[in-house]
Amino acid sequence: MYEVELKVRADHERAREALLSAGADPLGTVRQVDTYYEPPYRDFAATDEAFRVRREHVHGDTTAKITYKGPKIDATSKTREEHETTVADGETADAIFRGLGFEPVATVEKERHQYALREFTVTLDDVADLGAFLEVETDVETEADIEAAREAATALLGDLGLDPEDQIRTSYLGLLLDNEP
Amino acid sequence: MYEVELKVRADHERAREALLSAGADPLGTVRQVDTYYEPPYRDFAATDEAFRVRREHVHGDTTAKITYKGPKIDATSKTREEHETTVADGETADAIFRGLGFEPVATVEKERHQYALREFTVTLDDVADLGAFLEVETDVETEADIEAAREAATALLGDLGLDPEDQIRTSYLGLLLDNEP
Repeated sequence: MYEVELKVRADHERAREALLSAGADPLGTVRQVDTYYEPPYRDFAATDEAFRVRREHVHGDTTAKITYKGPKIDATSKTREEHETTVADGETADAIFRGLGFEPVATVEKERHQYALREFTVTLDDVADLGAFLEVETDVETEADIEAAREAATALLGDLGLDPEDQIRTSYLGLLLDNEP
Repeated sequence: MYEVELKVRADHERAREALLSAGADPLGTVRQVDTYYEPPYRDFAATDEAFRVRREHVHGDTTAKITYKGPKIDATSKTREEHETTVADGETADAIFRGLGFEPVATVEKERHQYALREFTVTLDDVADLGAFLEVETDVETEADIEAAREAATALLGDLGLDPEDQIRTSYLGLLLDNEP
């Protein structure tokens, strides 16, 4: 499974209007608190990988997921291999990874307002300490499907009045770490 | 949370009779398939740690758990720190740990017949390639409770007609790896 994703900075009020005019379906709002870990044997900033425990809060319910993201495999989007599964208990998952020697290195906290449009999920993200973004995202099964998905995502950004040239390939984690003194 | 555990080889027919005469409650049977992984940065055989993905089959249902076991902290039992949580999808958990560079090193497959007796779980294990064992196990909250639990477990083994001196501190994983040429 590959995640094809484009991200730009965006004014949310204007983006919301453009989404609704384009016929997007609101999917609701979720708050995510992601703790990123580094293993003792790899510098993820250098290898372009990520491993996190995500706590997701929707309508008072909390769920937890663990996620591994491999290096980006594509120079022009954020496409990468990704594996994610729900865990029963985020605190125990944290204890497991600390036991294995992983260290928490950063926390990314955001509120996401999601919309369905064509085959994409479009997300308006309010990210603590970073600001307002719009993400266009879809999953494809095989590497052969990536290019077409990337082109369709680029076209969709244009339709929403945004410039695909403004794309930010750096993750929220990367942007936060870049901001550190 | 600490796991206090004693294990001996045992004839299951005799053990079952002793358990039922002692008033043990049968808890049922479960088949467990445990895949153990090694990370690229630590030799778990040397550090006495373990990390696994367990698939558990009960009445046709399969669940998966991830577990970290720290080094044994006690010279006379198998007491160690342990953290375990259920995951939604064992195959995805496997993909996550392979992505992180962990390698599967061994699989332990066993059928467990479990009984509740006093504060303990007593388990008759049929382990593939290893044979028949009996385990006495309980969890305690703090390190201060370990010694009393260990003494009670030893007494219980004696009550079942088994010799606590025959205790095997090596894990099934360790026994299997010892058997390799």
